[in-house]
Amino acid sequence: MRALYKHHAGVGLALDDSRAKPSPGPRDVLIRVAKAGICGTDRHIWEWNPWAASRVPIGIVTGHEFVGVIESIGSAVTRFQPGLRVSAEGHITRGIDYNSRTGNAHIARGVEVIGVDRDGCFADYIVMPEDNIWPMHPDIPDTIGAVMDPLGNAVHTVMEAGVSARTVLITGVGVIGLMAVTVAKAAGASRIFCTDLDPRRLDLARKLGAVEAYDARDPAWVDDVRNNCRGEGADVLLEMSGAESAFNQGFAALRNGGKAALLGVPAKPFPFDFNANVIFKGVTLVGIYGRRMFKTWYQMEELLLSGRLELDDIITHEFPLEQFEDAFGEMISGRGIKVVLNIGD
Amino acid sequence: MRALYKHHAGVGLALDDSRAKPSPGPRDVLIRVAKAGICGTDRHIWEWNPWAASRVPIGIVTGHEFVGVIESIGSAVTRFQPGLRVSAEGHITRGIDYNSRTGNAHIARGVEVIGVDRDGCFADYIVMPEDNIWPMHPDIPDTIGAVMDPLGNAVHTVMEAGVSARTVLITGVGVIGLMAVTVAKAAGASRIFCTDLDPRRLDLARKLGAVEAYDARDPAWVDDVRNNCRGEGADVLLEMSGAESAFNQGFAALRNGGKAALLGVPAKPFPFDFNANVIFKGVTLVGIYGRRMFKTWYQMEELLLSGRLELDDIITHEFPLEQFEDAFGEMISGRGIKVVLNIGD
Amino acid sequence: MRALYKHHAGVGLALDDSRAKPSPGPRDVLIRVAKAGICGTDRHIWEWNPWAASRVPIGIVTGHEFVGVIESIGSAVTRFQPGLRVSAEGHITRGIDYNSRTGNAHIARGVEVIGVDRDGCFADYIVMPEDNIWPMHPDIPDTIGAVMDPLGNAVHTVMEAGVSARTVLITGVGVIGLMAVTVAKAAGASRIFCTDLDPRRLDLARKLGAVEAYDARDPAWVDDVRNNCRGEGADVLLEMSGAESAFNQGFAALRNGGKAALLGVPAKPFPFDFNANVIFKGVTLVGIYGRRMFKTWYQMEELLLSGRLELDDIITHEFPLEQFEDAFGEMISGRGIKVVLNIGD
Amino acid sequence: MRALYKHHAGVGLALDDSRAKPSPGPRDVLIRVAKAGICGTDRHIWEWNPWAASRVPIGIVTGHEFVGVIESIGSAVTRFQPGLRVSAEGHITRGIDYNSRTGNAHIARGVEVIGVDRDGCFADYIVMPEDNIWPMHPDIPDTIGAVMDPLGNAVHTVMEAGVSARTVLITGVGVIGLMAVTVAKAAGASRIFCTDLDPRRLDLARKLGAVEAYDARDPAWVDDVRNNCRGEGADVLLEMSGAESAFNQGFAALRNGGKAALLGVPAKPFPFDFNANVIFKGVTLVGIYGRRMFKTWYQMEELLLSGRLELDDIITHEFPLEQFEDAFGEMISGRGIKVVLNIGD
Repeated sequence: MRALYKHHAGVGLALDDSRAKPSPGPRDVLIRVAKAGICGTDRHIWEWNPWAASRVPIGIVTGHEFVGVIESIGSAVTRFQPGLRVSAEGHITRGIDYNSRTGNAHIARGVEVIGVDRDGCFADYIVMPEDNIWPMHPDIPDTIGAVMDPLGNAVHTVMEAGVSARTVLITGVGVIGLMAVTVAKAAGASRIFCTDLDPRRLDLARKLGAVEAYDARDPAWVDDVRNNCRGEGADVLLEMSGAESAFNQGFAALRNGGKAALLGVPAKPFPFDFNANVIFKGVTLVGIYGRRMFKTWYQMEELLLSGRLELDDIITHEFPLEQFEDAFGEMISGRGIKVVLNIGD
Repeated sequence: MRALYKHHAGVGLALDDSRAKPSPGPRDVLIRVAKAGICGTDRHIWEWNPWAASRVPIGIVTGHEFVGVIESIGSAVTRFQPGLRVSAEGHITRGIDYNSRTGNAHIARGVEVIGVDRDGCFADYIVMPEDNIWPMHPDIPDTIGAVMDPLGNAVHTVMEAGVSARTVLITGVGVIGLMAVTVAKAAGASRIFCTDLDPRRLDLARKLGAVEAYDARDPAWVDDVRNNCRGEGADVLLEMSGAESAFNQGFAALRNGGKAALLGVPAKPFPFDFNANVIFKGVTLVGIYGRRMFKTWYQMEELLLSGRLELDDIITHEFPLEQFEDAFGEMISGRGIKVVLNIGD
Repeated sequence: MRALYKHHAGVGLALDDSRAKPSPGPRDVLIRVAKAGICGTDRHIWEWNPWAASRVPIGIVTGHEFVGVIESIGSAVTRFQPGLRVSAEGHITRGIDYNSRTGNAHIARGVEVIGVDRDGCFADYIVMPEDNIWPMHPDIPDTIGAVMDPLGNAVHTVMEAGVSARTVLITGVGVIGLMAVTVAKAAGASRIFCTDLDPRRLDLARKLGAVEAYDARDPAWVDDVRNNCRGEGADVLLEMSGAESAFNQGFAALRNGGKAALLGVPAKPFPFDFNANVIFKGVTLVGIYGRRMFKTWYQMEELLLSGRLELDDIITHEFPLEQFEDAFGEMISGRGIKVVLNIGD
Repeated sequence: MRALYKHHAGVGLALDDSRAKPSPGPRDVLIRVAKAGICGTDRHIWEWNPWAASRVPIGIVTGHEFVGVIESIGSAVTRFQPGLRVSAEGHITRGIDYNSRTGNAHIARGVEVIGVDRDGCFADYIVMPEDNIWPMHPDIPDTIGAVMDPLGNAVHTVMEAGVSARTVLITGVGVIGLMAVTVAKAAGASRIFCTDLDPRRLDLARKLGAVEAYDARDPAWVDDVRNNCRGEGADVLLEMSGAESAFNQGFAALRNGGKAALLGVPAKPFPFDFNANVIFKGVTLVGIYGRRMFKTWYQMEELLLSGRLELDDIITHEFPLEQFEDAFGEMISGRGIKVVLNIGD
């Protein structure tokens, strides 16, 4: 089969045309991949940054966002049959620690991620445990099925924060931040305020429903958000940039007693004023990683079925697998927002 | 001043043109009423049904939904000034029991309701305690200000149930049920299903955002809702009819582990199957009365500011106070949905 | 192997000394049973009441509460090894509906219960799916391991209600009600009030920590509870009797805005006043069935490790399997509270 | 009247024997103080540290924890009468912002604190707004009534974290940390682990119910807590030291998906690793300041009525008001834990 893999300890990926097709174990299914999304994590692996060099084994097939069709099933599989169109949760757990057994397998001990710790989905076939399979609703097209993973990040962030009838501030509208705009609006946020550095993404955030989208470089936005929110600040902060300044400004723009969901990954530890930002304000923070198995997936399906998610402007490009260099190029240049690889026919 | 009051123990209300203007106590404000909504409770008082006869004192000024302007304040009032446009929460409490002191004054011991237990708002002036005043946001017009009370019922029901990214079934789309449709959609419900007996209200429910609106007389709707919701049933039930059949069918159409918020008031106790409806299903129920002071009011303001609430088709009629007989006539006939009295100039 | 089974459509069970030892499927484990508790459900099967006659297949091995040791594992089992001391959750699901995939498998569609729908644990061996296995903490003895199932019912009820720093009323102190007394106290209930008809159980409830234990026949207890709780009523109601009078009195003794968890199974539907009990009081109800997989099990383990659960007076008798008639006799007579069968050596 | 006040911009306080007795406004009550606790904040004012110098006006009467009896009431007071034994919430708000009107007045805008921003309780009399009064239950003695304020901090921290049937780690057992040990145990924590630098306080923590109390200087405690908690870490962290090392170690000892409540006030911002501590772990943090009006007070009353709070070893000294120098001396030396001034007779 074809597979895009990490062929050396340096920049880029290589396409292998004759990689052996994997075999499912007794509790696995084999999936023929139709489409797969390229994530910022894949970019890190492409660029071979220090995180990738320290974590990712050479030789691995990359990619962790996909949709496809079950080709065959292992001998002990009972819940799914060949022919079913599916996506899958990419976090794989051993299953006997607290989080694995209470609906939080995404933060379980010893979790493995496809395309990072074991072979991923930038290939004609992938093997996945039966427990990780998500049947795709027939009304949801493959292009969206290919990005259920990052959409799930956005949904998990929005739903953990709780946005219904609340004002929401989103600091950072990259791919997941933009998804969070349309998700928050569909999930009931009353008014959405955004910040970013990129004017094109700010424009898109407005189009998707933000009432204000600010250039984060002018700190006057903090007071503007506060003034718009009874002089007290936004009810909810979704931090999606990882930038130290966004943390400081975002918490300043959050009202006392507000809630912050943190998805953006800071490059390194930075000085944080817990007194002013959290303790004296009585603020609640929640760290967001991955998405719940499968509570988030059900929420995502419902939001998609509501017809209110606007993802067309976020998924900007699709390329055949063979044009993976163009695909990564569009994505790395910033011209593409979410780029999808078409793998199946 | 003019005042619409219960003049005898029988049908109807009378307009008194020279009632004494009330005086605010030290912690009260005097409000010049601009507009006031007519509620189903007012209809019960008009018709002098057994509940009204047992509870409402003859001579009382009726009405509890209104917007107006503060005319004067009592000697110990510190938070508001004359000239402020306001609505008010109509539940008045003594303030030293558990619910009064923990944000649930609407279910406090010894609560008094304006227009039921003491003089209400169908008059040129009304006295209200300072603690009950809600300043109206300038972007919200008087016609909506006049119906904050029932809108608050709808918002309280929807927010207690928690509809974000969930399927919602509403049994009964009278005034508050119709408001609940637009509120639930704005608050993030993914798909809304309704039942009622009145084809006009079912049509309006569809226009406001229900994906299906069923005639409750054909019980096939239960299976249809279940089929539309993964074969399991709706995530949330908002019971707004008080009908025994709506309880039975509504719980049958609710999925295991779902949540029901009960606002409709049954006419009398009826046999209920806790095993099938609640215990074996692991269902949560919550009884809804009034609205929170003032959490619900803030949620309502935010939903109104979102621009997503569609109330124009629900508030069908406005009449001057002098035409109160026409106003009650439209309301009682069912031609009117929500009818508003214009009292101020 | 030996197995206690339903040998005919009538009263009693029979012991088969030479039943075939079951074989585990690829994802199952085979467990050598050490001890097993006798449940009220087993009594219904013994007595062959209408429920049992309508649900339970003749020939089935009964029993669903047990502790034992893994004897062998199926070919696709990865998480557990032979020799491990375990209990198990007796609800077995197919695993692809909403509740199965979100931590609520106990209320999943098509759930099967061991000892009711398929062979249970009153035997030398039982086969269980790997997903249902609970490893026993070494500090928890077998006698308690044998009753993890009903203890889990009590823990699920108490934890769903939320008792920390709250007054708790328990209507009905049968086996699970008595367990709920000690569980609620350990879980942080401030003051516990109980009702029952049996003076011995009321005495035991007091010994386990109830501040008051009332004979339910004298309705004065309702006012006494209210007076003890600021004149407003208890914060939490745990309904564990299934009696219509306990529902009516229990809700009357619950404060406005309180929470009720319903575990007791009424014999049939009865007239219920939703207005007075739920709607006008703003009360929340939750139906309790089974226990969460595995959130409740973790809570139960922690409560046991706290050293504060007092179960010695609740587990009144132990009998060898061969003396099953004595065991059922003690249990049915009411002399025994919880009766355990010793099956292994 | 007598009053202990800040007489100059330097160390110490002075006792004025003839300060004018304050007069209650129309919505205030005048309280004759019986006993008052000395808080760490009072010590900062005594020592005139930079925070005190920047915030506290010279001339102010200090003290904010007290119990006493209502002497007289203002003209518009309706809820309380002279002769009632009371404590009071020391945070005073204007009452029209979001938090003031939704049960979170402790984090309201423009909140004033008695003994810091306006005259406090180290005096024969204090004036308090009617809205801040808490009637003391007759079963709770004055010595405990004098420390309801810090006990409320501990209760608010414990209840926000949610400790029922959970393992709890408390970093820092000063006065409020020690109170948190007994509160957490009474509120249902399964097992409590503590850290501190002071061996005497660690001993007292063990006596109050901690299963382990570690010297924080030996970092091996982190692994020990993890090992004791399934190898995963504690369910709950109560951070009560404000120390950077306690944050870092505390989060390392918290399990993925755990919850942290932060009460300790760091001396200054410090570098914090959000990735390792919060985001990748899916942890929830909540900042704790003051206590809820009056949800926390009700919880506190219930915990006191449970009879399970052990405060005798925490309240180590009582002195007459005239011996205030000895009282502050015992407190500042560390010989005293909680020191109470006896003001009334």
